[in-house]
Parts: sequence; C-alpha cells; structure tokens
Amino acid sequence: MAEKVNVCIVGSGNWGSAIAKIVGANAAALPEFEERVTMFVYEEMIDGKKLTEIINETHENVKYLKGHKLPTNVVAVPDLVEAAKNADILIFVVPHQFIPNFCKQLLGKIKPNAIAISLIKGFDKAEGGGIDLISHIITRHLKIPCAVLMGANLANEVAEGNFCETTIGCTDKKYGKVLRDLFQANHFRVVVVEDADAVEVCGALKNIVACGAGFVDGLKLGDNTKAAVIRLGLMEMIRFVDVFYPGSKLSTFFESCGVADLITTCYGGRNRRVSEAFVTSGKTIEDLEKEMLNGQKLQGPPTAEEVNYMLKNKGLEDKFPLFTAIHKICTNQLKPKDLIDCIRNHPEHMQTL
Amino acid sequence: MAEKVNVCIVGSGNWGSAIAKIVGANAAALPEFEERVTMFVYEEMIDGKKLTEIINETHENVKYLKGHKLPTNVVAVPDLVEAAKNADILIFVVPHQFIPNFCKQLLGKIKPNAIAISLIKGFDKAEGGGIDLISHIITRHLKIPCAVLMGANLANEVAEGNFCETTIGCTDKKYGKVLRDLFQANHFRVVVVEDADAVEVCGALKNIVACGAGFVDGLKLGDNTKAAVIRLGLMEMIRFVDVFYPGSKLSTFFESCGVADLITTCYGGRNRRVSEAFVTSGKTIEDLEKEMLNGQKLQGPPTAEEVNYMLKNKGLEDKFPLFTAIHKICTNQLKPKDLIDCIRNHPEHMQTL
Repeated sequence: MAEKVNVCIVGSGNWGSAIAKIVGANAAALPEFEERVTMFVYEEMIDGKKLTEIINETHENVKYLKGHKLPTNVVAVPDLVEAAKNADILIFVVPHQFIPNFCKQLLGKIKPNAIAISLIKGFDKAEGGGIDLISHIITRHLKIPCAVLMGANLANEVAEGNFCETTIGCTDKKYGKVLRDLFQANHFRVVVVEDADAVEVCGALKNIVACGAGFVDGLKLGDNTKAAVIRLGLMEMIRFVDVFYPGSKLSTFFESCGVADLITTCYGGRNRRVSEAFVTSGKTIEDLEKEMLNGQKLQGPPTAEEVNYMLKNKGLEDKFPLFTAIHKICTNQLKPKDLIDCIRNHPEHMQTL
Repeated sequence: MAEKVNVCIVGSGNWGSAIAKIVGANAAALPEFEERVTMFVYEEMIDGKKLTEIINETHENVKYLKGHKLPTNVVAVPDLVEAAKNADILIFVVPHQFIPNFCKQLLGKIKPNAIAISLIKGFDKAEGGGIDLISHIITRHLKIPCAVLMGANLANEVAEGNFCETTIGCTDKKYGKVLRDLFQANHFRVVVVEDADAVEVCGALKNIVACGAGFVDGLKLGDNTKAAVIRLGLMEMIRFVDVFYPGSKLSTFFESCGVADLITTCYGGRNRRVSEAFVTSGKTIEDLEKEMLNGQKLQGPPTAEEVNYMLKNKGLEDKFPLFTAIHKICTNQLKPKDLIDCIRNHPEHMQTL
C-alpha cells in the first residue's frame, strides 16, 4: 500500500453515509490514512440542486442521512472511476444488484494493489441458482481481495453514536489491522476474524431465520418456541457454512455478525414483521411487500429459495428442516402452522445415546 | 438400576407440575419405567382441603398449574422420604433454598444407586461467598450423581404443549439415554451434553446479562447496543465457565441452556423488566421488587454479587467488565448510564492484529 492509505467509499445511502462519519473521522485523525476520503454518490437532483454539491457544501446527506453532519474531509464525487481511481481501500456499500455493473466500470481503472471491503448484506443469484457472495463477485471481477464487515448495525443507530459491535471478516491477516483502524470508533467496536465467507453468509441466512421467527410470532406460539426456532436456525446456519464454505471456526458464529445480528433481526427487522403479518393476515408475501414496504422486496424469502436450490442439489433438504420448511411456507407449499411439525425431529434432536 | 426405573418428582410448583405432565406420560408409556410416579407435594390447605388430596382426586394442581390435568399415574405424596425412598431417579424441582434441608431429610433414606437431576435455576451462596451449584450440593449431601436440565422453558408454555427445546447436562454418559427417555416429548426436545456444570452455570449467569439488557432498554440505547450487551454477556458467560468450571465445549453454549435461554431472558423475563424500571424510575431494586414482584427477589443482582466475589478473589474483575459493571450498578456504586463506558474497551475488542 501507499505511504498514506487512500480510502474511497463506493455508496452513499443510509448505511454508507453512517459509516462515512466513522471512516472520515478516522482518516482525519490517524496518520496512516490520507485525510481526504472520496465518496461515490449517485447523482440526484434534490430541490433543483445536485446531491453531491449539497453534500460538499453542507456536509449532510439530506436524502439518506438527514440530520447528521459528515466529516468535512469526506468528499462526494459523482463519477465512480474518478472517486475510486486512487483508492488503496475501496469500501463497497451499495445495493447488491449494482455490484456487477460497478465492477465492470472499475476494472482496469483502480490501483492493482487496492483491497476491497464489502458492507453489503445480501447476495447475488449464481448462474443456474444458489448463492453468489458479493465479496466473491468483487474479487472475481476486480482481481483484488475483498473483506467484509457485518454485524448488528442498524445504520441510524450507528450514526447516532450508540454503542455497538461489528465483525470484519478478512481472509488475509495482513489487512486486519488497517481495516480495523479504519472502522473502529469509541462507539463502534471491531472484531476481526479470518472466516470472511462465514461472516458474509451469516448476514444472508439470518433473514431466513427471521421469517421463521415471524411465523412463530404470527402463530402466537410463545417465547420458548421462538427461542427454539432461532436456536435451530443458528444451528442450520453453522451447518450450512460447514457444508458449502467449510473451514470456519465455531467461535465466528458468536461474533456480532452471528448471534448478535441474528437476535436483532429476529426480534426487530422487517423480515420478521412481514412474516408475522403473513400468518395473521393470510395475504401473500408479495401483497404484504406492497402494503408494508412500499413494494420493496424482503430478503428472507429469496434467500430461502436460493439456499433451498443449493440444499436440493446436494440432497440435503432433510438435514436443514427449518430452512426447507420456511422456503416451502414462503412459496405456499406448506402452511405456516406446519412449521413446527417439520422441526420436531430435527437432526439436532437425533443424538445417539 | 432396577428392572423398572422408579421416578420421584421432588417438588410440585409451577415448573414441577408442568414437567410432571411429561414425566408422568413417559413413565406410563415406556416399558423401562415404573408407571407410578411419586410427586412430593408440600402440604397446604386449599379451601379447607389438602392439596395432595385435591391432586390425587382431580389430577390438577389447582394452586400452581391451574387448568392442566396431570397424568393419573402421578401420585402426590406429602411426606418427602415416603415419596423418594423407592426412586431410582429423583427429579429436584423446588426453590433452591430448600435443597440443603431436603437433602438432610433424605440422607440414608434413598436407594444408594439412585441418581438425581436438578431442574432448579439459581444457586446457593457458598460458605464465605461465591456460587455453590445446586447439583453439587445434592451430590455432596446425598453422595449420588446429579444431572441438570435447563433451557428456554417457561413453565406455562411447556404445560400448554408448545414446542421447545431443553438441555440435559449429564457428566456420566451412561445415564444420558434414560434421562432423555424420561423427559423427551413430541413438544419438548432434549439434547444431552456432558458439560453439566456449564449447563447449570448458564442458568444462573443469564440473569446477570438480563439486568444489563434491561438497563440498555431503560436507557433507550436501541437494538444495536442491546445486541452488543447480550453478546458480550454471552462471551463473559463462556469465559466465566472456562475459568471456574474448566473443560466445557464451546458448542454447549449454543444449546437451549445457553443462547436460547439467554435470549428469552433478555427480551422477556423479570430481571430485564425490573432493571429497565430501575433506570426509568430511579427507584431502588428493593423498592421495585416490592412494587413489581410482590416482594419476590430478583435473581440477577444477587448472582452478580456472588460472581463479583469470585472474580475479585481471582483479580479478574477487569476481564469481566460487563458482569462487574452490572454488579456495581445494582449496588449503586455506578450509575446505569456508566454501563457503556465500562465495556468500550472490553477484552473481546482488544485483539492483537
């Protein structure tokens, strides 16, 4: 890396702007970083004025993080290549569907020794079916290593400066320190682990479990049942990683990206909320997305679908009865009330004694 | 053990009666058990009639589990020794403060090859200070092995037949099967692990963490912070077991006794509720116990005190900043708002990279 590490934030939504507060402050405070941080902002007109101009003049992203000042050293740039070309660290924090196209634009235009870190939750559908991790897509397109950052990190609460933790998954140990230095704050505590894939997969799979938790809430089955479904969901997350992304440590699932993010998603979160309404209203997921989310799509049901594709391919549906049942409920192959019967004889309960 | 395994339930409160439904049904259905299950019932007069007579005539514990029928093969016995003398398995499910006295009554009066299993959450204060596990007290007094059963198991929900999981901790593998057979039901799924101490300690320590979760709720710090406090609490639980009851597997903390019971306690549960009120009302814990719990005592604060005694003795307070801060808040040595500053530099966040 260069003597001073240049940083570019690719994205300026709610989460991107919240993280820009921390990253900008660290770049200004720590000598290892170049103070000026570029932030790629998709140009929009706000009341007749360009969003990049508003951000650079008022240091506020009035559209996506109103009421918060960004550090003055964070500079909004409307051109992706211009923003990224000098970066040693590229922070990707855009909706996942933009990633392939962004990578195509950036290929050959960035520093060859740059590294990436993805803050993007979700995944792409692999060709044919199954999950394609965003960090893998970035590495495949740009031929640079890509770490991930995931955790129980609701953007607005992070922007408020409320205390929380996060997990950086970084396969190559030598980047761990610089990445922690870039993201760690007094209120945003970083733990670095090497199991990058496990960290990223947790961020996708938790949304499936949250649907199960929502069904239990809708069925009014109580606290014990909800705890059991969340726990069995965690066990299936661990097993899924073990089968499809082997080599992870059990301790990684105790990090913020694992148990902590799972809990918040299963008690708050829109996958839980819409899934509860799915049971109590009898409406379809699609109708509820229109009603409750202004037509935005839930992540749980499509994740359950791609996961099911992967499990089916390996003949493993019966080893993952919770994931399988949730997929079938989301696609009307099963009724929500059938959920519990599907997990009574869970592999977790089938010890040989 | 005898050809037919005799079972006695020592206790008939809410949890004892709920578990009697399952144990009674299993004893009646499975050939390995003697059908008749004795249940020691502390004799009380209910509307001029003995509680044991009511239970044996109506098969309902009208005082502690109203509205539920007990299996007819569960026989209420008002004399402790009479109830226990033929038992091969003694299920202890009474308030923990009764245990030493009950054990004294039973010593020399039970089968020498009997085994015990404790369903009692909580602990006794050791001589001088610190935690004395209930299972250890039973073994010490009665010279018989004692397993434990813990999990996210609210008694009324178990009695309703709602699906849940539980964990049996049983050091001696050879008792695992008979204990699972006795407790497992279609709606009550048992996992057996060998780390009995870890299972039992989780049931005590979770109440400390729940106080922390309640403080965060009272301070309105949001979902991220609550998830972080719960996760750091889990990490301190693991570390505490590692120091004071070494040799446990990490996987045990993923069982119902660990993460699942912790979650329900930190989202529902009275330790959380009173701790939240402690922050919002400014009243003392004692006053809130009187107001909110009819004078019953919370388990979190005294557990935090004994744990603190143990940590102090080993000079380990700073390795357990969450447990330590919660104890200090409960005893007015710190303000609730100081909680977060105590955990910003948690050992979990102090990796060498």
